[in-house]
Amino acid sequence: MDFATLIGLFSGLALVVAAILMGGQINIFVDVPSMMIVLGGTFGTIFVAFPFEEVRQAFHAGFKAFSSRKVQVREVVGTMVKIAEISRREGLIALENVKTENMVLKKACQLIADNAEPGLIRTTLAIEITSMKRRHKVGEEVFKRLGSIAPSFGMIGTLIGLIQMLSNLNDPKSIGPAMAVAIITTFYGSILATVLFLPIANKLRTRTLQEELHLEVIFEGAKSILENNNPLLVSEKLSSFLAPRERK
Amino acid sequence: MDFATLIGLFSGLALVVAAILMGGQINIFVDVPSMMIVLGGTFGTIFVAFPFEEVRQAFHAGFKAFSSRKVQVREVVGTMVKIAEISRREGLIALENVKTENMVLKKACQLIADNAEPGLIRTTLAIEITSMKRRHKVGEEVFKRLGSIAPSFGMIGTLIGLIQMLSNLNDPKSIGPAMAVAIITTFYGSILATVLFLPIANKLRTRTLQEELHLEVIFEGAKSILENNNPLLVSEKLSSFLAPRERK
Amino acid sequence: MDFATLIGLFSGLALVVAAILMGGQINIFVDVPSMMIVLGGTFGTIFVAFPFEEVRQAFHAGFKAFSSRKVQVREVVGTMVKIAEISRREGLIALENVKTENMVLKKACQLIADNAEPGLIRTTLAIEITSMKRRHKVGEEVFKRLGSIAPSFGMIGTLIGLIQMLSNLNDPKSIGPAMAVAIITTFYGSILATVLFLPIANKLRTRTLQEELHLEVIFEGAKSILENNNPLLVSEKLSSFLAPRERK
Amino acid sequence: MDFATLIGLFSGLALVVAAILMGGQINIFVDVPSMMIVLGGTFGTIFVAFPFEEVRQAFHAGFKAFSSRKVQVREVVGTMVKIAEISRREGLIALENVKTENMVLKKACQLIADNAEPGLIRTTLAIEITSMKRRHKVGEEVFKRLGSIAPSFGMIGTLIGLIQMLSNLNDPKSIGPAMAVAIITTFYGSILATVLFLPIANKLRTRTLQEELHLEVIFEGAKSILENNNPLLVSEKLSSFLAPRERK
Amino acid sequence: MDFATLIGLFSGLALVVAAILMGGQINIFVDVPSMMIVLGGTFGTIFVAFPFEEVRQAFHAGFKAFSSRKVQVREVVGTMVKIAEISRREGLIALENVKTENMVLKKACQLIADNAEPGLIRTTLAIEITSMKRRHKVGEEVFKRLGSIAPSFGMIGTLIGLIQMLSNLNDPKSIGPAMAVAIITTFYGSILATVLFLPIANKLRTRTLQEELHLEVIFEGAKSILENNNPLLVSEKLSSFLAPRERK
Repeated sequence: MDFATLIGLFSGLALVVAAILMGGQINIFVDVPSMMIVLGGTFGTIFVAFPFEEVRQAFHAGFKAFSSRKVQVREVVGTMVKIAEISRREGLIALENVKTENMVLKKACQLIADNAEPGLIRTTLAIEITSMKRRHKVGEEVFKRLGSIAPSFGMIGTLIGLIQMLSNLNDPKSIGPAMAVAIITTFYGSILATVLFLPIANKLRTRTLQEELHLEVIFEGAKSILENNNPLLVSEKLSSFLAPRERK
Repeated sequence: MDFATLIGLFSGLALVVAAILMGGQINIFVDVPSMMIVLGGTFGTIFVAFPFEEVRQAFHAGFKAFSSRKVQVREVVGTMVKIAEISRREGLIALENVKTENMVLKKACQLIADNAEPGLIRTTLAIEITSMKRRHKVGEEVFKRLGSIAPSFGMIGTLIGLIQMLSNLNDPKSIGPAMAVAIITTFYGSILATVLFLPIANKLRTRTLQEELHLEVIFEGAKSILENNNPLLVSEKLSSFLAPRERK
Repeated sequence: MDFATLIGLFSGLALVVAAILMGGQINIFVDVPSMMIVLGGTFGTIFVAFPFEEVRQAFHAGFKAFSSRKVQVREVVGTMVKIAEISRREGLIALENVKTENMVLKKACQLIADNAEPGLIRTTLAIEITSMKRRHKVGEEVFKRLGSIAPSFGMIGTLIGLIQMLSNLNDPKSIGPAMAVAIITTFYGSILATVLFLPIANKLRTRTLQEELHLEVIFEGAKSILENNNPLLVSEKLSSFLAPRERK
Repeated sequence: MDFATLIGLFSGLALVVAAILMGGQINIFVDVPSMMIVLGGTFGTIFVAFPFEEVRQAFHAGFKAFSSRKVQVREVVGTMVKIAEISRREGLIALENVKTENMVLKKACQLIADNAEPGLIRTTLAIEITSMKRRHKVGEEVFKRLGSIAPSFGMIGTLIGLIQMLSNLNDPKSIGPAMAVAIITTFYGSILATVLFLPIANKLRTRTLQEELHLEVIFEGAKSILENNNPLLVSEKLSSFLAPRERK
Repeated sequence: MDFATLIGLFSGLALVVAAILMGGQINIFVDVPSMMIVLGGTFGTIFVAFPFEEVRQAFHAGFKAFSSRKVQVREVVGTMVKIAEISRREGLIALENVKTENMVLKKACQLIADNAEPGLIRTTLAIEITSMKRRHKVGEEVFKRLGSIAPSFGMIGTLIGLIQMLSNLNDPKSIGPAMAVAIITTFYGSILATVLFLPIANKLRTRTLQEELHLEVIFEGAKSILENNNPLLVSEKLSSFLAPRERK
């Protein structure tokens, strides 16, 4: 998560908190039973909707999306062009020594170096790509679902509060505060969904789209290397993946 | 349903129940006519939307999704590699003796052992896969629909309660409790949809995606065996279906 | 509509009606102007959205979906296997005499008997299938739209009632009953959509999916017969369309 | 717009107006500032969402959808069969003289008569079809968007009215009528969307689907003519586009 | 943004403002804490959902969509026909000198002039097109998301205001104005989404669809030039991209 993002995020939320403080003390927004309903309900229900393992992975991916460095497309294009040059100069077998953190690129290099037949390489890489998409999708799905369960439990909490209040209307003075407490769960549910769950789901989708793009660059690059195109043509072709101002 | 899931689920819902008890007795949330409206309406209507047989299957699938053991992808990959080894060592005819609970894998082995032509094998397996997806989809659809009918009947129940209350406003003291009762159906409808129907629909979808993945592994494995690839290549190709940390 | 469905449907709705009667007389839910608004508005508007002919067809299909007998997939598979046996024993020309109510199967038999070239047969059957899907889709669309117009007119009716009530607040005693009447249109709109229009739309979709499945069986069967596969292989292939427990 | 449609539409809306009149004078539903907010806001905003030219086209298409005569599929099938007969009897060159209002059919005939190569004809007709779909889609999109902006401005108008009323609560007697006026914008927005914009969007979609069907008939017919099929086979093939009861 | 659009937009919004002024002074709609909540919350949250760089690009694209001149399809068709004529007269090599602002057209001309093989040209242009679509999509996504976050923060602000008001009901006279202030955030959120964010998202989509159309014209034109079609046929084929009244 780069610095500019942090500034944007915190200055935005600071405005919200400042506005709330201008209206009164913040402690009227803290209500323990309301938290128990919204958080307990939301996290309890997510385990009915998804296996434990997938929820764990989703939270792991959620954290990683903020901490890990973003690899630029132009770096991937650069790597593929360099690999094309190596394979031209030193033969396909030289790809065995390519070092990379990207699992799919590693597999592609190995298969090319092993002289596997083109059809098999294409199928294998295609499986890798679909398989990675499938795994990434899970994280997005879990957070989207959290973003839909949280407001539902917010509303359920408000219904609970209203029913309790309406069943027992003896003291007219207590109606206002009781309503306030009833509404707090809806407030919690909306905040959780709007500020946390849905944006994280979106961030994970953005990440996935980006990794898909990287894999497509690798896929197209590997095809070109197999067809023994010269590195200049590979560079020309792969630069089409970049935005105009990223091409030099 | 594994142990971790159960702990997550029950500790979550325990928080909700505890929070409700902190606000008053739980018996004000029990209202028999409200239950009759929401449950009767929801289950009556589902029979207009789906044939009886499909509703029955959906509930069967819903229960099974929680009780049955989850088969891991890596087990399926392992099985296909073992079958590839057998077919290499002992010939395709040996596949006749492969024992498996998976209907599609069984059919694949039989067809290969019968020396059917590759085109027919591919078509037949493709039909099996589409056909299984179609059957699984029904369960998800039924629960999704229940999750949309239940809140509708919750709202209809509340409208009924409001109309009855408003037509007869003689006793101002009864307004509060009457409103509370009117709101209870909305509460029931939301709880049913949020905690039960929608998460089960999601769970069934997760299951279906997983079985589809298994069938794809079987499909790709069978293709490799037919093309007489050596077991090492089959293993290399099928391992692309696994998450990086599942490959050894 | 089978017997089990009827029992489910009526026992469900009986609960709802019983619950309403427990709350007071049913005549407060009958209001003629409210009916005029919801029914008049809904059916008037549907004629702007769809041509008269398509609305007529949709209602025809809606009725038929409940009355007509459901043909099982396994019957269609059985028929195709029988036809494959006939064509094997007596030659393709014998298909001319096949008697069937299914328009597409009839056309398939004729084309095969006429010795039309395989490409033409495939194209023609594909057109038949797309064409049938398109016609069936209309019914579903009309009922879905009715299910979205009805609640809108319910809300419009309530707005009308509120505006009339609020413009004329002289008698405080009339506020309650006036509100009750205003709410009744929302009640009508929700009931129509939830119990009638949306489930029928869903039923029509289920029917369409089923007929599509039948057409796919016919399509695959006809292809096999043209390729002169032996009836056992046809049976093996088509049985993949069935659920495991339907295969004997 | 055929006669049956008009009767359906007007009798429906007559019921609504009659019901409103039974509840009081209609003039309480007329409020000029409310109209200014909903109409001004809706039509002002649509020009941010779409270029002026596309809005103009959409309204043109909206009017045409009601006035123009609907061409039946079976007429198009008939035309194509007749053209097939002409081309069989008099040669492909004779298609130059075919007279038709349908732009695509005209282009198809010209290209065939010019003896263009089949690949080019297919590509050109495919472009024509996609291109027509794209133009038609614009109208639908504009009306759908209007149908979503109008209720939003209805709600914005109500919020404006409520804020004005609540800031100035001196005279309790004015609260009722002020609320009534505030609600009127929501009423206008809902009416516009439900009765006008959304059904017109749907009508345009229906029209588009129908023209697509016509273009597919022309496309398939032209392919058959190019392959020099005999007119009977063309008729047999194209009749698959018709509903069973439209085939004679 | 052409003149007609401006007139439409401003006369529409003038009506809205006039209507508001008829109901009282406009200063009751200005509330600084409410602005802080809606604007701070919306822009803070968008940085969780998207990387800083993409938000910046989206706003850049949003401004450009209003200021930049719209290129007509018929201009692109004209350009491609002219290029076809040049390539016919002076050979493919002459395309090196074609001057154009369109990046993709430039690349197409270069590749053709370089005598690259057709397969490579097609793949490269296809990558350019997908790559441009992907970049354009980001802007639409960001504004759509803003259009969904803004009303959510509007509602959150209203909940905050209600909770603060209800917790402290001592002075009955303050209830009205406090409610008015609470509602103002919902008003801000709706206005921002309805008038600004969603229409801009739509405008960007319209732009993207249009550029896609241009790229398809270029793609089809380049294919024809490579196949050495004569300029008349190219013109005939590409004119199918135009609306009937745009063809002369």
